[in-house]
Amino acid sequence: MAIAVTPPRGMRDFLPADKALRERSLGIIRESFRAHGFDEIETPVMEDSARLHSGLGGDNEKLAFAVLKRGLSPADVAVAAEQDDLLSLADLGLRFDLTVPLARFYATHRASLPTVFRSIQIAPVWRAERPQKGRYRQFMQCDIDIIGEAGALAEIELITATAATLDLLGLEDCSIRINDRRILSALLAHWGVAAELTERALIVIDKLDKIGVDGVAAELGALGIDAPGLAALLTELGTGGWALGDGLFDGAAPAWLDPKAFADLAALRAALPGVDLVFDPTLVRGMGYYTGTIFEISHPSLGYSLGGGGRYDGMIGRFLGTDVPACGFSIGFERIVDLLEADTASADLAVVLVHDKEADPARLVALKRDLVADGLRVRLERRTKNLKALLDRAGEAGYGRFAFVTAETQTAGDLDFKPLGV
Amino acid sequence: MAIAVTPPRGMRDFLPADKALRERSLGIIRESFRAHGFDEIETPVMEDSARLHSGLGGDNEKLAFAVLKRGLSPADVAVAAEQDDLLSLADLGLRFDLTVPLARFYATHRASLPTVFRSIQIAPVWRAERPQKGRYRQFMQCDIDIIGEAGALAEIELITATAATLDLLGLEDCSIRINDRRILSALLAHWGVAAELTERALIVIDKLDKIGVDGVAAELGALGIDAPGLAALLTELGTGGWALGDGLFDGAAPAWLDPKAFADLAALRAALPGVDLVFDPTLVRGMGYYTGTIFEISHPSLGYSLGGGGRYDGMIGRFLGTDVPACGFSIGFERIVDLLEADTASADLAVVLVHDKEADPARLVALKRDLVADGLRVRLERRTKNLKALLDRAGEAGYGRFAFVTAETQTAGDLDFKPLGV
Repeated sequence: MAIAVTPPRGMRDFLPADKALRERSLGIIRESFRAHGFDEIETPVMEDSARLHSGLGGDNEKLAFAVLKRGLSPADVAVAAEQDDLLSLADLGLRFDLTVPLARFYATHRASLPTVFRSIQIAPVWRAERPQKGRYRQFMQCDIDIIGEAGALAEIELITATAATLDLLGLEDCSIRINDRRILSALLAHWGVAAELTERALIVIDKLDKIGVDGVAAELGALGIDAPGLAALLTELGTGGWALGDGLFDGAAPAWLDPKAFADLAALRAALPGVDLVFDPTLVRGMGYYTGTIFEISHPSLGYSLGGGGRYDGMIGRFLGTDVPACGFSIGFERIVDLLEADTASADLAVVLVHDKEADPARLVALKRDLVADGLRVRLERRTKNLKALLDRAGEAGYGRFAFVTAETQTAGDLDFKPLGV
Repeated sequence: MAIAVTPPRGMRDFLPADKALRERSLGIIRESFRAHGFDEIETPVMEDSARLHSGLGGDNEKLAFAVLKRGLSPADVAVAAEQDDLLSLADLGLRFDLTVPLARFYATHRASLPTVFRSIQIAPVWRAERPQKGRYRQFMQCDIDIIGEAGALAEIELITATAATLDLLGLEDCSIRINDRRILSALLAHWGVAAELTERALIVIDKLDKIGVDGVAAELGALGIDAPGLAALLTELGTGGWALGDGLFDGAAPAWLDPKAFADLAALRAALPGVDLVFDPTLVRGMGYYTGTIFEISHPSLGYSLGGGGRYDGMIGRFLGTDVPACGFSIGFERIVDLLEADTASADLAVVLVHDKEADPARLVALKRDLVADGLRVRLERRTKNLKALLDRAGEAGYGRFAFVTAETQTAGDLDFKPLGV
């Protein structure tokens, strides 16, 4: 009896064409990051529950898939129910990001790592979110982080490596929006927002592109924020005329801005001449752990970002019990891969050998072996009634040429290759 | 306060040198399999519990990590405890192999796949086993499978692709031991073992290399098997003189062997002239689902196999409710990677730029960008008191040359590269 079979809710299978594009893109990302002096590491997909729920993960902690303890008895389970302590049923959980595992990894292996450690993590994470278009319960993250560098060198290397990688992927039109949490704080203080409301006000301002100036003004009002000039500021931020102008970088910045943060941003821009860097004082980034520079990748044709990151000096050392400066940049792989196209350049090197059912397997495989040794990618296909469908499918799978194996075919030289239709 | 931080029990972190070796090896395996006409696919790491526990996974089903349902209430949990139905607490589980997910994937996507589908799966699996040397709770599997091909072409392509891949990895000394479940059955029947005891007898014979002839004879005796000639047979199998000889392949096989299975093996050997194929009638393979040919990779210096597989015609179609022929070969990646050595050929293309703390970050990154554009892998290192330790560590990380960035360094051409000590 056939039963219904789909992947678990919100998770995806990848068929050959998609998987090939993903692996090729991940390979480009990995090699580019490595060329820029970053080193790839790997951690297990699971971490101890206590570490996943230590407060470093923000709201994402609630989305962690929990792994049931092995060897539980019904009595153990009854106790957990009685004590209303369901978390005690799980000792492990699937990671919801790569930053908490990195903090744990760094605490474990610090003695074996360089003083300034530049890490690459290319790996899946899991979140038990309500599935929706473009949001999955399993998805890839591509993170680079620099740990142990307090100066702007970290930001410059991260942005340089990310911009170069986007170019290699064929996404030359991207720009990188940049801001600094210290500037956001200065902005809010200038407009009279109390320090204890700053964090909540930032979360509201983060919604500017979704709910507009009026929406943000309303939500800030609901928080009891009624700063003079706020509406005017939000209008300026919303229209972006002031926000995206060059004025801030030529010395015309308002005096109430955090001067050190402002100077740092100006220095970054000067150090990154080849990068389309855009100052955006409305950029907030969701996570609470950012302490300085924050950045996001924008693409002119898209209303959402293709990745982002920033400086988070207080976090990596949390498991160590010491402060360690850190800065990271994460590429939004699932969004980026949707923009990329399959590799067609190598189709000519991929060939299909069509054979009859009666063909001698040993001879077929000998032919194939010779062609593989010549650097080709070779698929055998038994001739079916609908030859066109067979060849069309091979073309879609990235094969560029085909030939028939007949009784006369003695060696690979006897094969008469023809192009597969576009 | 610093807290203890290690990966979860039985799971591993990979530091840069190990991770680089792993990714390079996986890349070689992936490209080799692709060259041989296989297509990579991917499934989520989790599958529905019901599918993981459908009986296809044998003993491994008991080792699946179970994922707690989201949104459970203490009342739900109390009911599960009361009804002694702890499985109902989990709706998902982590895959324990790649074969059950492949069967599920094939059932989902059959209409989009070629008639004969050659799949690659390179992905981690999880088993809640007692951790011990060489056994981990998360490990990589590299599987190729051919679905929809009932003839020997499947075995020939799988063995050819696997042998070529081992060569590319630098493991030219491997041989492939081969047997057929039908021959094992014929052997046991010839020596008077009742059909209903065949499966259990095979499990015992599988231990031959661990417990020896006497051990196997004793365990078979405990099963009530007391076939005439059994001791003699086991001695023959154990010493291997008969087992590994060529006699079986030149027409001198005993008449009581399954003649079709024997002819199939002989044809395989003829079709694989370049492969070190060794007939081994003691080869059993653990899983119950094999129906024909079985094979394992041996290395002269190792007492364990480096991978294996076989034909399992009854299984892939189980979720479809129809029979589909299938044959697969799995490389034991964790064992193989232990035998491989880091890539030293590319060290010359990896350089370290040592700079002072005062160096201008913008200039450093500009130098780095130029060298990366020239095809080099470039790491910046701030000079520390112990320069030797810094350079040694870079050498271990695969970097082959270094240069100092000084006040006089204007362009990459001013850098004076020296080799890093071996």
